[in-house]
Amino acid sequence: MKKITTRNQNYSQWYLDIIDVAELAENSVTKGSMVIKPYGYSIWESFQKVLDKMIKDTGHKNAYFPLFIPKSLLTKEAKHIQGFAKECAIVTHHRLKDSPEGVIVDPESKLSEELIVRPTSETIIYDTFSRWIHSWRDLPLLINQWANVVRWEMRTRPFLRTTEFLWQEGHTAHATEEDAEEETRKMLGVYKDFVENYLAIPVISGLKTESEKFAGALRTYSIESMMQDGKALQTGTSHNLGQNFAKAFEVKFTDKDGKEKYVWQTSWGVSTRMIGALIMAHSDDAGLIVPPKIAPVKIVIIPIYKNEEEAKKVLEVAKTIQEELRSVDENILLDQRDYETPGSKFNEWEKKGIPLRIELGPKDLENNTVTIARRDTMEKLTVASPELKEKVNTLLSQIQTDLFLKAKKFREENSYEIDNWDGFKRHFQEKENSGFVYSHWCGSETCEKEINDELQATTRCIPLDQKEEVGKCIKCSGESKKRIIFAKTY
Amino acid sequence: MKKITTRNQNYSQWYLDIIDVAELAENSVTKGSMVIKPYGYSIWESFQKVLDKMIKDTGHKNAYFPLFIPKSLLTKEAKHIQGFAKECAIVTHHRLKDSPEGVIVDPESKLSEELIVRPTSETIIYDTFSRWIHSWRDLPLLINQWANVVRWEMRTRPFLRTTEFLWQEGHTAHATEEDAEEETRKMLGVYKDFVENYLAIPVISGLKTESEKFAGALRTYSIESMMQDGKALQTGTSHNLGQNFAKAFEVKFTDKDGKEKYVWQTSWGVSTRMIGALIMAHSDDAGLIVPPKIAPVKIVIIPIYKNEEEAKKVLEVAKTIQEELRSVDENILLDQRDYETPGSKFNEWEKKGIPLRIELGPKDLENNTVTIARRDTMEKLTVASPELKEKVNTLLSQIQTDLFLKAKKFREENSYEIDNWDGFKRHFQEKENSGFVYSHWCGSETCEKEINDELQATTRCIPLDQKEEVGKCIKCSGESKKRIIFAKTY
Repeated sequence: MKKITTRNQNYSQWYLDIIDVAELAENSVTKGSMVIKPYGYSIWESFQKVLDKMIKDTGHKNAYFPLFIPKSLLTKEAKHIQGFAKECAIVTHHRLKDSPEGVIVDPESKLSEELIVRPTSETIIYDTFSRWIHSWRDLPLLINQWANVVRWEMRTRPFLRTTEFLWQEGHTAHATEEDAEEETRKMLGVYKDFVENYLAIPVISGLKTESEKFAGALRTYSIESMMQDGKALQTGTSHNLGQNFAKAFEVKFTDKDGKEKYVWQTSWGVSTRMIGALIMAHSDDAGLIVPPKIAPVKIVIIPIYKNEEEAKKVLEVAKTIQEELRSVDENILLDQRDYETPGSKFNEWEKKGIPLRIELGPKDLENNTVTIARRDTMEKLTVASPELKEKVNTLLSQIQTDLFLKAKKFREENSYEIDNWDGFKRHFQEKENSGFVYSHWCGSETCEKEINDELQATTRCIPLDQKEEVGKCIKCSGESKKRIIFAKTY
Repeated sequence: MKKITTRNQNYSQWYLDIIDVAELAENSVTKGSMVIKPYGYSIWESFQKVLDKMIKDTGHKNAYFPLFIPKSLLTKEAKHIQGFAKECAIVTHHRLKDSPEGVIVDPESKLSEELIVRPTSETIIYDTFSRWIHSWRDLPLLINQWANVVRWEMRTRPFLRTTEFLWQEGHTAHATEEDAEEETRKMLGVYKDFVENYLAIPVISGLKTESEKFAGALRTYSIESMMQDGKALQTGTSHNLGQNFAKAFEVKFTDKDGKEKYVWQTSWGVSTRMIGALIMAHSDDAGLIVPPKIAPVKIVIIPIYKNEEEAKKVLEVAKTIQEELRSVDENILLDQRDYETPGSKFNEWEKKGIPLRIELGPKDLENNTVTIARRDTMEKLTVASPELKEKVNTLLSQIQTDLFLKAKKFREENSYEIDNWDGFKRHFQEKENSGFVYSHWCGSETCEKEINDELQATTRCIPLDQKEEVGKCIKCSGESKKRIIFAKTY
């Protein structure tokens, strides 16, 4: 059986080991792309189900736009293409043919215009919006798309950075600047709600710097989370696009005053990267830990017996329990495999992070009890059978809360306010877990870049939820009114 | 307002008009690809929800495999690549760059091996299966994927044939030939169940001929439906792949007897093409008709009033009705737009095929009644308010049944048994709606091809549900034991 590298030994390898032993994903023969295995995909489906409802409940409708974007379209917004030109998968031909050297690309099938596999869909969607929007009555236009996108990455890492990934991308158009800003922040709030209340990962909402904003946006907001090694992971972004794309794609409407105006736009997205965040925020050296509210399987029942007679009795009760708990979760797993020992079953489901394990043996039957094991704390407790359902409900909600509080406590313990360059420098040079450092910054890209180059400390975001205070840039001592988070990142 | 071409005038244009007025999809700037608009996509989501459950209930698990397939992998199974070589989108470069002529493909970013955008995923999935499968305990391996695929099509038609389309593709591996055949037929049965009982379209299940089978399969089964112009549409296929791919990709397992064996495989899929079938099977000259069990919105309530006072009263009752009917359907639409007349609302929802329309005006309030209009028959009836919920339930199930029976009757009226060449020839040359012709066929590709070339009549399938009878090939008078369906097709 594969051993898991501990977090202390090698955090990076631990992450890969968890993905392996929990059977979440694996590398594929297509370089940079991963195969999302059934268990990993069921977690993604669980994310989708909750988030899709949240997106629809806030008035958005799903639609589907082409995978391929003609080159001329992708290059229409100047800053956008600057941001994506270096990481494009480009389709140039449409036929293979036999040749003495085997199957080759048929040179006669060259396309008159190259097609780019969407790295994101602003251009193709806004080209469409320009035909859908005519009057103020068509606004706001609130669209979402679940899709695969491709960005050519040289250094990939499962879930965190892969050439192809799955995501949702919201795209909206509004009549006024205020409406667009409100939407941008609202969807950032939806992401915060989702990540905190379902994934049990606390986030900081904030504004990205100019150099870190989305290519073509007016401003970008993000939610940032701290992983167990103190590094930051950006788990979602929401962009106020202003009128940049509206002007490039002629997305105009006739307003109530009869005048023709450009729309104000937003886009926002979260991806399979969130599975990476889930792994790194909660899991331990025994395997994955999945918060109950997002767990594809919340409970696994393991029957314990020594002979066929016992097996029969235990399985009968196990099935009754499965039935009884169906109102808690439809997918309660009863692991009936007779060729695996209870011990190896415990191990397997621990590695997959099922929140609760119910053990049921002949002794439990005698005493009319069951044993419950919590995955997060590994605690075991014996429960009288009539109280099982209530106890299970309490435990599931307890685990959800505890995971969040634990992650929040960890973040707080690893957050610092630093106001002098020497201390700042020493902090990032000497501390292995450097966490989140809240410092003043003047807003210049030069300071930002110098800090990054020297200390590999990146600007994460300017937290929205802070009061103004007079301060001096940690690097140049220039004027600053707000703190920004510096952290190492993935 | 756009007028719909009638079916009699021009069936082909009618189909495009329905897609347009019901706001299902539109052509995109990417040639051959369509944009699936929010209402069209909500129908696809409705399909997915039902079918995904059916697929999971039969033991399959979803997973996700890469979009890009290295050329060397796609070419491993000889017949498979023959079938797909001519319709591949090929990625050859990964970077754009500035040049005096504008943004161009950077020649230095040429890939060492070309990547094919998946036309279907047998090759990349079975390459993975070869690592997942070791022993008989790993079998059957039952996987499904929801994905986009690309086949380079020269002549496209929304939903029926587009360069990119959305589908699900099932891929399974089994220990024995019998298990694989059973799975192939079982999934054909799931498709039949889905298309008949949800889409209300009757289907014929049968075996495809050698020339029409999937590239690389041992045999292909399909379900075939008749559209309102008498043409056949293949709405789903299920392939028994035998050991062809297992041998090409070395998918082997150690059996209970300790011997290493190749697995037996199946694959099966349905796509957004089913939306094309839905449109053409049921809709009329007034617009789309959606069967209730698959309708994203089953009921629309239209308030009717002349002044604000009436509006207030009517809307209050309308909301009560919406609440009351929530147990029938969560998405009951109350069309409150004050800038549209009831007439234009009637028209809009008729075009979109909402099964039931509830009209509510001041007179209804006085009489404690509501008016219900059926979309399929356009009948209107007045119902006493206390009986509304029961009546709505009855009507929805009635519409579902009636649509199926109507389509079935149409198919029966347009099905023929023809046993002589002259009659056969005259039938396809003279009848505009040539329907399904059940004739004997010797099994030779020559006869099949000659019939197709001369009469554009294609072999659809050899129905499974028929008794053997001695007959003579309609073309060459060779021996035949079963009839095959000939029809014109899309």
